[in-house]
Amino acid sequence: MKHYIGIDLGGTNTKIGVVDLEGNLIISKIIKTHSKQKVDKTLERIWETSKELLVKCDIPLFSVLGIGIGIPGPVKEQSIVGFFANFDWEKNMNLKEKMEKLTGIETRIENDANIIAQGEAIFGAAKGKKTSITIAIGTGIGGGIFLNGNLLTGMSGVAGEIGHMKVVKDGKTCGCGQNGCFEAYASASALVKEAKERLKLNEDNLLYKEINGDLEELEAKNIFDAARKGDEFSKDLLEYESDYLALGIGNLLNIFNPECIVISGGISLAGDEILIPVKEKLKKYTLLPALENLEIKTGVLGNEAGVKGAVALFI
Amino acid sequence: MKHYIGIDLGGTNTKIGVVDLEGNLIISKIIKTHSKQKVDKTLERIWETSKELLVKCDIPLFSVLGIGIGIPGPVKEQSIVGFFANFDWEKNMNLKEKMEKLTGIETRIENDANIIAQGEAIFGAAKGKKTSITIAIGTGIGGGIFLNGNLLTGMSGVAGEIGHMKVVKDGKTCGCGQNGCFEAYASASALVKEAKERLKLNEDNLLYKEINGDLEELEAKNIFDAARKGDEFSKDLLEYESDYLALGIGNLLNIFNPECIVISGGISLAGDEILIPVKEKLKKYTLLPALENLEIKTGVLGNEAGVKGAVALFI
Repeated sequence: MKHYIGIDLGGTNTKIGVVDLEGNLIISKIIKTHSKQKVDKTLERIWETSKELLVKCDIPLFSVLGIGIGIPGPVKEQSIVGFFANFDWEKNMNLKEKMEKLTGIETRIENDANIIAQGEAIFGAAKGKKTSITIAIGTGIGGGIFLNGNLLTGMSGVAGEIGHMKVVKDGKTCGCGQNGCFEAYASASALVKEAKERLKLNEDNLLYKEINGDLEELEAKNIFDAARKGDEFSKDLLEYESDYLALGIGNLLNIFNPECIVISGGISLAGDEILIPVKEKLKKYTLLPALENLEIKTGVLGNEAGVKGAVALFI
Repeated sequence: MKHYIGIDLGGTNTKIGVVDLEGNLIISKIIKTHSKQKVDKTLERIWETSKELLVKCDIPLFSVLGIGIGIPGPVKEQSIVGFFANFDWEKNMNLKEKMEKLTGIETRIENDANIIAQGEAIFGAAKGKKTSITIAIGTGIGGGIFLNGNLLTGMSGVAGEIGHMKVVKDGKTCGCGQNGCFEAYASASALVKEAKERLKLNEDNLLYKEINGDLEELEAKNIFDAARKGDEFSKDLLEYESDYLALGIGNLLNIFNPECIVISGGISLAGDEILIPVKEKLKKYTLLPALENLEIKTGVLGNEAGVKGAVALFI
């Protein structure tokens, strides 16, 4: 039996998993990234943990065919990291080479949003589709575009930055410093921000009650739960969310005409509460032929998307 | 010497050309499409004209390696036309098969905006670039996306409809019936429409003088010319145009991170008058790494883009 190691390198935590050819996660472990100890130290700790996991499952090293790593930053040719979004490791680092030298095993690396898209395309919600776009919606909005078996990465690994597509000219300020970004309207954080502003003016609703009036406690999940219980205030917020989501997705449909859109990340927890209005509103923003035979789904890999997606780079 | 025949099938006119392997147009002729005579008749007339052109240039039939045809409508797998935008020929027609039966020569067909992109990518402004996007701006805005040697066509041939990407939520009404489309702001027609509205309120400018106050006569070219002569009113109009153009292009850069953007069609006649402000304004709308090493150019194939692009399908 052949296996792969998938690594989801994060700002704080790094998840390491052993995955088989069918995408089954055999075993996994989360360790601290401790990026301040510098890249070599972190890679060594990751590799030690990987070997421990293999020993635990009685998997010999020679049956590991490859190592995939998801990176928070742009990646060129599955080898060179333009920069790491959360820590100060050197720019334009050939992480593939470093890891291969350390492990002796073929390594492929890719941007983390692209990894999720690859995972959903190979093992998940878009399995079997030639072309799919996965939109990871949480604190920000990341996109991974899977075209005929390949990820779209662009000239310098920046492709897929759909969160910074402008959907409102000179609109709300985004974390990137520019205005009117898709992310500034439709990310889970943007939804929570909008909800807080509205809750300051309106306390007479179930959502306010459920969080005991403590706005600091508010998460997107509270809004989804209250909407499911029939709270009109929360339903209005999901209308807002789904309208901007449909606008952004509609743009992607007109540009790519894909077979499948996968919504993953925090917002996907809203399930049909968000999918149904998005599908309805898409008619307002999309050329009709691009809606024919289109599937829109929520992601199925959840917390395992990073590790499984990293392994999917080899499939 | 080997040759190809390129055909630019239009609503009113069809241009037919003989092109060599280097993309040189040897001879060409424009005939009426007369689509009402039905597809078979039109194809026969096109084929007769093609053969006449070959005879005129002493090119034997056996040296023609292929026929490329640009179509006003979505095309699947370079063979099936979803629908023809301007005439009522049957839907989902396999035009490739029809033409091959008639001529005995391998035929490839593609959407006309895609054809222009292919032409610029193979023979024109983006020659040698792995990834380029050509934006044809005239009455509408069409896009062709060239990725690593292939055109992006999508599941049903609709991909590249960047003119209907929404740039202003619930904004101006577009010809497609939806609101806020890129085309409703940045096409040459949209620019002329905006200019007319402004001219109704302000007659004290060079542009008004140059068209002798006859708003019906106004074309985008008049605005470019007046701006070049220093007319502030016309310069403001180019500011408006370049701002929306930069917004739309910025979105494409964030999504595709291409090496090259080519602006073709009527607006490209403005040259530096539009390229310089667009480049400046892109900083407001684009993630900076996507601007590094980017080239933005005007198209070079001009009126020959359709015929040469059709032939570029074979290169």
